[in-house]
Amino acid sequence: MITGKNYIGNLLSSVGEITFTTFNPKTNLSNNHTFVEASTVEIQEAVALATKAFDTYKNKSGVEKSVFLLQIASEIEALGDKLLHVYCEESGLPLARAISERTRTLFQLQTFAKLVKEGSWVAATIETAQPDRKPIPKPDLRKMLVPLGPVVVFGASNFPLAYSTAGGDTASALAAGCPVIVKSHPMHAGTGELVASAIIKAAEKTGMPNGVFSNLNSSGIQVGIALVEHPQVKAVGFTGSLSGGRALYDLAAKRDEPIPVFAEMGSINPVVLLPTAARTSSEKWAQVYAQSITLGTGQFCTNPGLILGVKSADLDEFISKLSSEILKVAPSCMLHPAIIGNYEKNKETLSSQQGVKVVTSASGAVKENYARQTVITVLGSTFLKNPTLHQEVFGPFSMVVQCDTVDELREIIVHLEGQLTGTILAEGDDFKKYPAVVEGLKTRVGRIIFNGVPTGVEVCDAMVHGGPYPASTDSRFTAVGTASIKRWVRPFSYQNWPNSWLPDALKNENPLGIARFVNGERTTKSIG
Amino acid sequence: MITGKNYIGNLLSSVGEITFTTFNPKTNLSNNHTFVEASTVEIQEAVALATKAFDTYKNKSGVEKSVFLLQIASEIEALGDKLLHVYCEESGLPLARAISERTRTLFQLQTFAKLVKEGSWVAATIETAQPDRKPIPKPDLRKMLVPLGPVVVFGASNFPLAYSTAGGDTASALAAGCPVIVKSHPMHAGTGELVASAIIKAAEKTGMPNGVFSNLNSSGIQVGIALVEHPQVKAVGFTGSLSGGRALYDLAAKRDEPIPVFAEMGSINPVVLLPTAARTSSEKWAQVYAQSITLGTGQFCTNPGLILGVKSADLDEFISKLSSEILKVAPSCMLHPAIIGNYEKNKETLSSQQGVKVVTSASGAVKENYARQTVITVLGSTFLKNPTLHQEVFGPFSMVVQCDTVDELREIIVHLEGQLTGTILAEGDDFKKYPAVVEGLKTRVGRIIFNGVPTGVEVCDAMVHGGPYPASTDSRFTAVGTASIKRWVRPFSYQNWPNSWLPDALKNENPLGIARFVNGERTTKSIG
Repeated sequence: MITGKNYIGNLLSSVGEITFTTFNPKTNLSNNHTFVEASTVEIQEAVALATKAFDTYKNKSGVEKSVFLLQIASEIEALGDKLLHVYCEESGLPLARAISERTRTLFQLQTFAKLVKEGSWVAATIETAQPDRKPIPKPDLRKMLVPLGPVVVFGASNFPLAYSTAGGDTASALAAGCPVIVKSHPMHAGTGELVASAIIKAAEKTGMPNGVFSNLNSSGIQVGIALVEHPQVKAVGFTGSLSGGRALYDLAAKRDEPIPVFAEMGSINPVVLLPTAARTSSEKWAQVYAQSITLGTGQFCTNPGLILGVKSADLDEFISKLSSEILKVAPSCMLHPAIIGNYEKNKETLSSQQGVKVVTSASGAVKENYARQTVITVLGSTFLKNPTLHQEVFGPFSMVVQCDTVDELREIIVHLEGQLTGTILAEGDDFKKYPAVVEGLKTRVGRIIFNGVPTGVEVCDAMVHGGPYPASTDSRFTAVGTASIKRWVRPFSYQNWPNSWLPDALKNENPLGIARFVNGERTTKSIG
Repeated sequence: MITGKNYIGNLLSSVGEITFTTFNPKTNLSNNHTFVEASTVEIQEAVALATKAFDTYKNKSGVEKSVFLLQIASEIEALGDKLLHVYCEESGLPLARAISERTRTLFQLQTFAKLVKEGSWVAATIETAQPDRKPIPKPDLRKMLVPLGPVVVFGASNFPLAYSTAGGDTASALAAGCPVIVKSHPMHAGTGELVASAIIKAAEKTGMPNGVFSNLNSSGIQVGIALVEHPQVKAVGFTGSLSGGRALYDLAAKRDEPIPVFAEMGSINPVVLLPTAARTSSEKWAQVYAQSITLGTGQFCTNPGLILGVKSADLDEFISKLSSEILKVAPSCMLHPAIIGNYEKNKETLSSQQGVKVVTSASGAVKENYARQTVITVLGSTFLKNPTLHQEVFGPFSMVVQCDTVDELREIIVHLEGQLTGTILAEGDDFKKYPAVVEGLKTRVGRIIFNGVPTGVEVCDAMVHGGPYPASTDSRFTAVGTASIKRWVRPFSYQNWPNSWLPDALKNENPLGIARFVNGERTTKSIG
């Protein structure tokens, strides 16, 4: 049941005075529930509980944490159709998407459960003493990863489940041993509360400390600011806009004790259509990209917003085919009137720049909050000179840049802002002929794709979802995949520590049976 | 030969107008050479060369980089006694220290050479495609660590070799594949130039690109500011004061493109003398700590500046013995008049706080720039209330805090600022009786030591030299040991990339023979 209240630890609470509702963009009507924004007192209480919970939660075993994470997944599943219904009502996204996003969310929780149950992720590194070393003895040193403390997670607008309340940030932080306080996204506060109730149930059933999780409603920016500025908060995870992510980063950097902010802030995801591929495969790529650009109404941070090619009849052909293919896609609903408002505004800003030609724009009547997919085109020289054209248009939009030469194309790439992904479409001798283009693109992105689309982010060990700023605030980490746990931990060393007082991961006997680096070798063996 | 010039890439250059000299604190006289501060043009040129060098240097193989690093070590050794002489002349440190610090510097270079030659440090992680996966195929994803770009290194005052020009920051960044621009420390600009000449020689002999290394002289803060603000600089390493490190962090955070700053800013390194240890071993620890506090004239970031115990006759005994033992140590020379000036000032500030008692202060005449070792004591309740008492006094100084109870001691610990190290001195049932003290200390430090001293930082895989702020600006990394290379790299993913165009580390054949994670298993085997 949706109460509209906050979870301050295990307790539902609504002492604040600011209220708000969510909105159904498909019906263009407000939803029924009223949500109460978290008050200052509730924010303080949530952080105090998280700080206290950390004292015990940080020492929970991998097995205990995995039981908790799996229980969260079960409780979310147990929410059943109610959750899917609220999800659709608050996002305008179709049921099939709700189901697949729930599957992804459960998979993420299960993946981190498996990771911490197995236990080797703590990167236990042991160097035993060398008492006879000259000129001075070498001490015994043992290192492992330990959690940072309470983490604040900002839910994303475009993934009400997979990047929100129990999404990748929350799952990885809880797996790391950090209590989590979610600043719920106002557009899907009901979905958030349902998922929060599942997490709280799981915490209670598996004996986790009160405060290991809280869920705070907010309609504006004040709750988020108060959380990021709180001295007991030790790290922040965010998925959203550049302006939002940068604002949080700046707040965190100005604290007496600066804290890490991992903000994944989107990207225009450049795609390079190399000459031979343009000649031989433009029809295929036009079809594939018409789908990729409009997938989820273009509301993905990996949406391909920039396609670069060399001016030619082949590229003209590609543009014309992309144009006709994308018109075949039925317009679909965006997440919220504010989102489509921004889409229209940003699309207009780019379309009205000098030298820009609008190639395709779905015409005819569309329902309120439904987005018309749009493709524009511009010359390379124009794109190079005008940074406004580098801005992300969040929605079913892409821009084809027609470069005079491959050199100009490379020039554009190396001057691009940092991106989550880059894609190379190549056939025949393209790779061999244009290595500088590929090399250039590699310096600007976190993930590079060959003959495919950037949309679709695997949750796995080898994923990088992040990239040079402004794709993310710290390219040294990924927001997706098992390695995302590393955002919330720090290495910690024990020197000459008595074996019986070491954590299990570092004990001579290796009671957890994990893989460790012992005197330079990876082994599961015990020591001595 | 010392020219007083900057190395702008391989070229000696001195077009600037600001000049300065170094100072011999032992003779209390300026040294002979005149150094020319880098000009704006030279700074720009150094960064431009580094940016260009990155294009090729980032793709150098592990073997090539290891040859370069080993050659740097050889060239430093080849500088012979000249280097040791200048080191002593510019630091006032004894010859034995110069020799041991040179050994450490060479060891660091050799350690990183070994790491990159072996090659597994790139953490190659491969997940092969599952074309038949339902509902959608799984792509082939392959991830490895890649260098960030040009790194600026700020040499430390207290380690003219091991934490300066070719110190740990430089060695790890070059090993990672990042060109390095050193902002040379003005107190040992001659030592810096000699070491820089060795690096340049090594770069030329091993075919490294011009710009892979530059060395910029500076007497004030302007060169450092210009470097950190330069858009082409991608990361910063710093060892020094809290005010200096924080200033650089703030500059970097305010850039259009914020960049990571790893600043190691020192610590007061709390030592807890638990009751049974105080009763049974106070004589031993008094002797050991008299040495640790005065080692290198107390000019170590791991100097034990804070000793905590519970008020008792045993603790009185410890204080009295520490006092007499430390008076047996002959006063020694500090690095520079500015350093001893700060020492005297900070010592005086702490000594004059209400409730502080000066237990020991070496009396009698000492030579100019020689520091009198000092121990002060204060009650726990006083320490808790007065943050001024938490400040680091860089030099042969320590403060014994006498707590009313173990609870008060724990209270002090958990409210301490972040520290590089913490030490527990315990005997008998101390560990069992006071687990909360140990747990509390663990939350505040990067390394915890049992029955030893914090001074002495092993260069190894299991070391953590870093810690919660303000010990460092990012506790997720270490400044010392092989893992310090991770400060300068980011993960990078290839999706469905053609095998022949993958870097060797990710190719099916595993031509480097490195250990990789392939579909969840660590193996050196080839794929398919």
